[in-house]
This record gives sequence, structure tokens and C-alpha cells, in this order.
Amino acid sequence: MTPDEAVRRLELDALYADYAHCLDNDELEAWPEFFTEDCRYRITSAENFEAGLPLGIVYATSKAMLVDRVMALRKANIYEPQRYRHMIGAIKVGAEDKGARPVVANVIVVRIMQDGAMTVFAAGRYVDRLVRQGDAWKFAQKEVVLDSRQIDTLLAIPL
Amino acid sequence: MTPDEAVRRLELDALYADYAHCLDNDELEAWPEFFTEDCRYRITSAENFEAGLPLGIVYATSKAMLVDRVMALRKANIYEPQRYRHMIGAIKVGAEDKGARPVVANVIVVRIMQDGAMTVFAAGRYVDRLVRQGDAWKFAQKEVVLDSRQIDTLLAIPL
Amino acid sequence: MTPDEAVRRLELDALYADYAHCLDNDELEAWPEFFTEDCRYRITSAENFEAGLPLGIVYATSKAMLVDRVMALRKANIYEPQRYRHMIGAIKVGAEDKGARPVVANVIVVRIMQDGAMTVFAAGRYVDRLVRQGDAWKFAQKEVVLDSRQIDTLLAIPL
Repeated sequence: MTPDEAVRRLELDALYADYAHCLDNDELEAWPEFFTEDCRYRITSAENFEAGLPLGIVYATSKAMLVDRVMALRKANIYEPQRYRHMIGAIKVGAEDKGARPVVANVIVVRIMQDGAMTVFAAGRYVDRLVRQGDAWKFAQKEVVLDSRQIDTLLAIPL
Repeated sequence: MTPDEAVRRLELDALYADYAHCLDNDELEAWPEFFTEDCRYRITSAENFEAGLPLGIVYATSKAMLVDRVMALRKANIYEPQRYRHMIGAIKVGAEDKGARPVVANVIVVRIMQDGAMTVFAAGRYVDRLVRQGDAWKFAQKEVVLDSRQIDTLLAIPL
Repeated sequence: MTPDEAVRRLELDALYADYAHCLDNDELEAWPEFFTEDCRYRITSAENFEAGLPLGIVYATSKAMLVDRVMALRKANIYEPQRYRHMIGAIKVGAEDKGARPVVANVIVVRIMQDGAMTVFAAGRYVDRLVRQGDAWKFAQKEVVLDSRQIDTLLAIPL
């Protein structure tokens, strides 16, 4: 690995750390800023992903749609007592391809209920494409591929 | 990111790895060595932390208090059959501020009982300040901010 | 940390990421390629490991034995509905010793059943030795030291 490549990887590591803290701190209004204007964001199941099925549980094709989603979430959830904690690991950065970096990573989300109960809420992987815009990396594509076939249909939070 | 900054981040990553192994290997006598003499260490709930409440479940204002704590734990726990496994992720290193580095990180601790049962024992984040002493980084401040409001009141182990 | 050492650590981080994705993607035929021809691979319990007991739940002394193991798994498991997700953290890289790098790391594996149930399936640590072969790092030794004393005796998957 070259020193330049090492620096790129640490920048991307730092981006995923920021992403996790954004969600876990419930700073949802800042979440769309991780994406490009014409991004593609999707939450889907591993089964659908592997079958090449295009749609998902959540599907957005622009940053504006992510902004709308956050606004809808804020209106819908009068009271949101649970917390989430993301562990993102096995961040695997691919070679640059047409100006973008493919990245896959593992993700586990623990949900903490108000009574203290903690469970694994989601497990899966990110299948992403990142592009450089000025000083920052942005998600041009983010696919959240969940391992579970059965997904809580009320699931509406960004992952 | 500059190459110098990249090296700093990897040093801090390595420190958190050492910290996790120290606790998971039950090498508690070595644990205070991660801290400065006049450190501040606290375990608190996210709710108390966000409300700015000063005290916590555990509160220490010196390395000597951490040493005392370990001695008390060794005396109290005649028999400690369970094991713990820390996953520390999303390590976010801030810019140097008055000679210290602010770091936040996510942490999940799995508890493994003697009969093999494994549960998420703790989830939360570290809110830390690290300073350089000679060749090593030390915690001048470590706040363990637990997501759960309800915390096992017998909780006495370092996190 | 020197810039050279920083690059080595990122290479090893990337290797563990590849390793996790290989297993989680069920690409078991590629798994033996992470090892040297005369590797030693073992899955054992922390209790046995600490007692210095030589054998384990799985014990192999060559890459060929790992290849055999994968073939046996493929024949035995007509139908494998569950998925696994590895989180590997606290990767601690030691100084080079006789041409090899000792590495310890924490690992947690979440199992996802077809009905969506998610549980912590395994927790423990890797105690590894890595050697450089050409452009790649290979495991000359990998010990999977599980925290639980009671291990599912049907456990046969690589970890």
C-alpha cells in the first residue's frame, strides 16, 4: 500500500465514524449532507440484493428525497424513546473506478430501549460508492443490505 | 488528511485496541496506566450526560482513585465467572485543542456467562480527551456514556 | 509510529476486512487462501487456551486440511439458511518477530436466522501470526479463542 493510499483509507474510515455518530446522536438533519445531490440510497434485504431486485424497503434517488424522509420521520415520531448504536467494521476500500471509490463494510446496529433492553436490531453490510467533492467524501451510492429476510415493516430510520 | 495526522490517528486506534484487550484480558491492574495522574473518569448515562448532570455511576478524579477501585474490585469479587468482550468503533479524532486530542468512539460490550449465554451488556460511547506523555497517549478524561437509562447497580467493572 | 509502520498496520486492517467479508459472503472456497501452506489453525475455548491445552474444537496443521474442511462442509450442509456477520476490532499488531507479525484482535459473530432472529453466536479473540508472501499477508497461525466454555458441538464453520 502506498502512503497516499493509506491516507485515503484513513479519510474513509473517518467518514464512516462521522456517519455512525451522526445517526447515533440522532442528528438526522445532518444525515443527507453525507450524500451527493443525485445519490442513490437504498435499504434492502440480502435476498433481494442477491436476486438483483431493484427496489427495497427504502429507496431514494436524490439528496432531496433524503431530506424529505428526515422531515417525515420528525413529524411521525412524536416520541422516540429508543437509542441506536452502530458498529461499522471490515471497511474494504476498492480501487478508484471512474472517479469513485467502491467501499463495502459490515454493520451491526444495537437498539437500546428505555427499560434498558438491548438487542441486535440490524446486521448487514454497506455496498457504497464514494466520490470526492472538494475536501470531503460523499456517498454517490449507499446500499444497506440487511441479512435478515424479515424486516420490521415500521423500519423507517436511516441506517 | 496529512501523513502526520494519519500517523496520529493510527496511534490512537492502537491505544483503543490496547485498552480493549487490557479489560477483556482482566488485566485490571494495568488499566490505571492508561490515564494521567489527574485524570477524570466517569461512567454515566446518556440522559444524565445530556442534561449536564455532573455525577455518574462511577466517578474518579485521579489515577490513584482508579487504582483504589481496582483493589476494591479484586477484594470484592471472590469469584468472577463471566467474561467481557469490547468492540470499539467509529473512533473520531478531533483537532488538537490546548495540547489535548478530543476523541469520541462507540463501544459495545458483550458479556459471556459461564454457561455460554452471550448478551449485549453495555452500549454507548466514549467521550475522551487524550494527551501525549513521552511516547504514549494517556486519557486525561474518559467519559463512558451508556445508552441505557437503567444500569445494573452492581456494575462496578471498568468500561 | 513511523509512516512505514502505519502502512503495515493498514495493510493488516485491510486483510482482516477481506477475511470477514470472505466468511460473511459464504465464499468458503477462498478462505484457505488466507493461510500459508503449513499454517496452524485452531478454534478453542479461552479456558483451554489459558490452560495451554493443545487441541481444540477445530485443529488443522496445513492449508490442505482447511481445503478438506470446506469440502466436507459443502457436502454436509445441504441447506444452510442462516447468515453470519463478523465484527473484528481492537486489532493489535506486534513488532516483527522472526519474519512474522503477531496480531491479536477481538471478534464477535452475529448469527441471523431465516426468521430474522439475531443473536451473538460467538465472541472471542484471534491470536494470530502473519507472514508476508510477495504482495500479500498470510496467516501462518490463527487461533480462534472463544470466550464461551460451552460451544455448540455442531459448530463446524470457519471463524
